[in-house]
Amino acid sequence: MDHVFVDLDRLTERQRYKLLSGTIIPRPIALVTTVSLDGSTNAAPFSFFNVLSSDPGVVALGLELNKDGSLKDTTVNIRDTEEFTVNIVSMTMAKQMNVCAYSFERGVDELERATLTPVPGTAVKSPRIKESPASFECRRIVSVAVSRTRDIVLGRIVGAHYRADVIDIENYYVDAQALDPIARIEGTNYATVRDRFSMPPHSLDNALAAKRFSGCSGS
Amino acid sequence: MDHVFVDLDRLTERQRYKLLSGTIIPRPIALVTTVSLDGSTNAAPFSFFNVLSSDPGVVALGLELNKDGSLKDTTVNIRDTEEFTVNIVSMTMAKQMNVCAYSFERGVDELERATLTPVPGTAVKSPRIKESPASFECRRIVSVAVSRTRDIVLGRIVGAHYRADVIDIENYYVDAQALDPIARIEGTNYATVRDRFSMPPHSLDNALAAKRFSGCSGS
Repeated sequence: MDHVFVDLDRLTERQRYKLLSGTIIPRPIALVTTVSLDGSTNAAPFSFFNVLSSDPGVVALGLELNKDGSLKDTTVNIRDTEEFTVNIVSMTMAKQMNVCAYSFERGVDELERATLTPVPGTAVKSPRIKESPASFECRRIVSVAVSRTRDIVLGRIVGAHYRADVIDIENYYVDAQALDPIARIEGTNYATVRDRFSMPPHSLDNALAAKRFSGCSGS
Repeated sequence: MDHVFVDLDRLTERQRYKLLSGTIIPRPIALVTTVSLDGSTNAAPFSFFNVLSSDPGVVALGLELNKDGSLKDTTVNIRDTEEFTVNIVSMTMAKQMNVCAYSFERGVDELERATLTPVPGTAVKSPRIKESPASFECRRIVSVAVSRTRDIVLGRIVGAHYRADVIDIENYYVDAQALDPIARIEGTNYATVRDRFSMPPHSLDNALAAKRFSGCSGS
């Protein structure tokens, strides 16, 4: 089937967002908790997010400014405190995460509105969310301004909290079914990890067989 | 239920990888194609990957060195050419992606071994994969060395190729069902986006109702 080429620089920001957020899916969700210098807590979900390194543990967040050009609370708080906590969102917390995504006026405590429970951080000042099956405490490494309206923050994971039933602490195995996270697609759509499959690593024996099979001469 | 705290700095790299890749799930997969300075093509899948900005379009890749300390082909090629192509992996390409994940000796053409078809790039030198439902052509913005063994690459998306059936070019709607991407969990486990649900944005009416309901005094 034919392919069409799209020049991304010719799209509006809204069109580009729709295209990218509809294609690079599913995206894991970070419900990020931060504190301001005056001690008020903020919580907001991000799916422009992932782990990018395990040595050290590093996560990335893509942050955007408000439509009026001002910084969102999460961005201000990470700039001011250099700390944040990534809370994993399980299916049981979906509606509560959705409350935290709402643009309340500044100073509103999203966790209170969402009836989620803050627990003081262990290695950082930002709280974790008690209802989350897993939370990562992070310290900012660097922020990269990729445009006037977008910051990318890299954070080093310094500690993790796991609900006892999701982790086998002997071998660091995490139970995906117990974690039951939701992930972002586009618009109002979300995915789960409930439809899973297993695929063993490719072996060279198979590679050679496939090569013989396809009649390739190799390289 | 009680939570346990894990100090990530006290884990081995392997334990930390297992923990992070088992928890931050599902991760979208980039089958990254690059070319070397002498013109040979490389393809390798990455799930330490996501879109982090839509204005401009920016993706991030977490790259690691080989166990012997040398750079992997993808890392070398991005350093040398500053270009790469992110190909989305649909379910129909799962086994072929798995072949590309195999550590062949240097110089082996993974696409040939996987019976995938390179198509010359439009805005970049790296080819796209014909069988992919969508491909993003990217130019490196910056690489951040977060340790001796890990590079994080940020790339600006300059163009996109879409198979005609996955995109409505009038309104930039992408059909998740036609795209049918696979995503990474941990070990041999993958997820699909076939188990989806819809959740409309939270409204203030609902917020006020929830507030009244929970008896919160607000802030």
